[in-house]
Amino acid sequence: MRVLGIDPGLRNMGWGVIDVAGARLTHVANGICHSETGDLAGRLLSLHAQLTAVLARFAPDAAAVEHTFVNKDAVATLKLGQARGIALLVPAQAGLTVGEYAPNAVKKTVVGVGHAAKVQVDHMVRLHLPGVVIAGPDAADALAVAICHAHHVQSSGRLEAAVARAAVSKVGGARR
Amino acid sequence: MRVLGIDPGLRNMGWGVIDVAGARLTHVANGICHSETGDLAGRLLSLHAQLTAVLARFAPDAAAVEHTFVNKDAVATLKLGQARGIALLVPAQAGLTVGEYAPNAVKKTVVGVGHAAKVQVDHMVRLHLPGVVIAGPDAADALAVAICHAHHVQSSGRLEAAVARAAVSKVGGARR
Repeated sequence: MRVLGIDPGLRNMGWGVIDVAGARLTHVANGICHSETGDLAGRLLSLHAQLTAVLARFAPDAAAVEHTFVNKDAVATLKLGQARGIALLVPAQAGLTVGEYAPNAVKKTVVGVGHAAKVQVDHMVRLHLPGVVIAGPDAADALAVAICHAHHVQSSGRLEAAVARAAVSKVGGARR
Repeated sequence: MRVLGIDPGLRNMGWGVIDVAGARLTHVANGICHSETGDLAGRLLSLHAQLTAVLARFAPDAAAVEHTFVNKDAVATLKLGQARGIALLVPAQAGLTVGEYAPNAVKKTVVGVGHAAKVQVDHMVRLHLPGVVIAGPDAADALAVAICHAHHVQSSGRLEAAVARAAVSKVGGARR
């Protein structure tokens, strides 16, 4: 199973793709979609195009987006929300269900504690994905989200269910 | 010139289309895109599809979105931001520039004062667009945004510029 993780942001939207085979995780690619200039609609259009290209290139089977918000500043929260709308839309347009994880849930899965420092998350991402070259902090967070989703899907047995469903749909079977 | 106004919301996204010929405004259509159930990504996908259908059906030349945020509640602000991301993206995908107006600017244009009551806005929208049947409060707000954009474009002389640009692009001319 291939998982895409996204760390949404208007200026920098991190993304990371990993392959999951049992307990084994393999890094596929990571990067950052940028939209630094222009009017808001144009920036969202650019993020949509860049993220759509990532989906088309790496064809993930599942996606997950970090669920965060900026509490102290409504303007920043609205900006983040707009970027997050694009981050959720693009995988949905590709027919994927999109998991959502709070930053603390991501840290708890990847590092073991909910209030880990950023540097610790970065360290554990590198440990989970040996040899990875990370494009930047937002890409590291995106890979952490992907790792979190992989663990949650596995531990809940949803991986088997998803594989079974995929097999059924591939042979044209129907449950009811 | 045909103008699309959008009042963004996750549950109810109002839209309204008007035609502008000099000082004369004519109602074309209005409605509300709904997304009440399902996961967030699926709801955004549904809003995107509904709004894309509106654009395809009415082919507006310009679009404007209300620029508002919920100050007291970060969760509500984030939700609104996500819906607003879709409201800005869809017209941009159709190649339109998207105007943004704060609620007070919309009220000031349509009613004459920045702190007008909702019922007053509704009344003035009906006065501007005789015979209009309004789908609901969100559609009324969307028509108000469209009227606001029409007035701003006209008063700043951007209408003539836009028409000139459209004419140039239609005959395949280029300025430089």
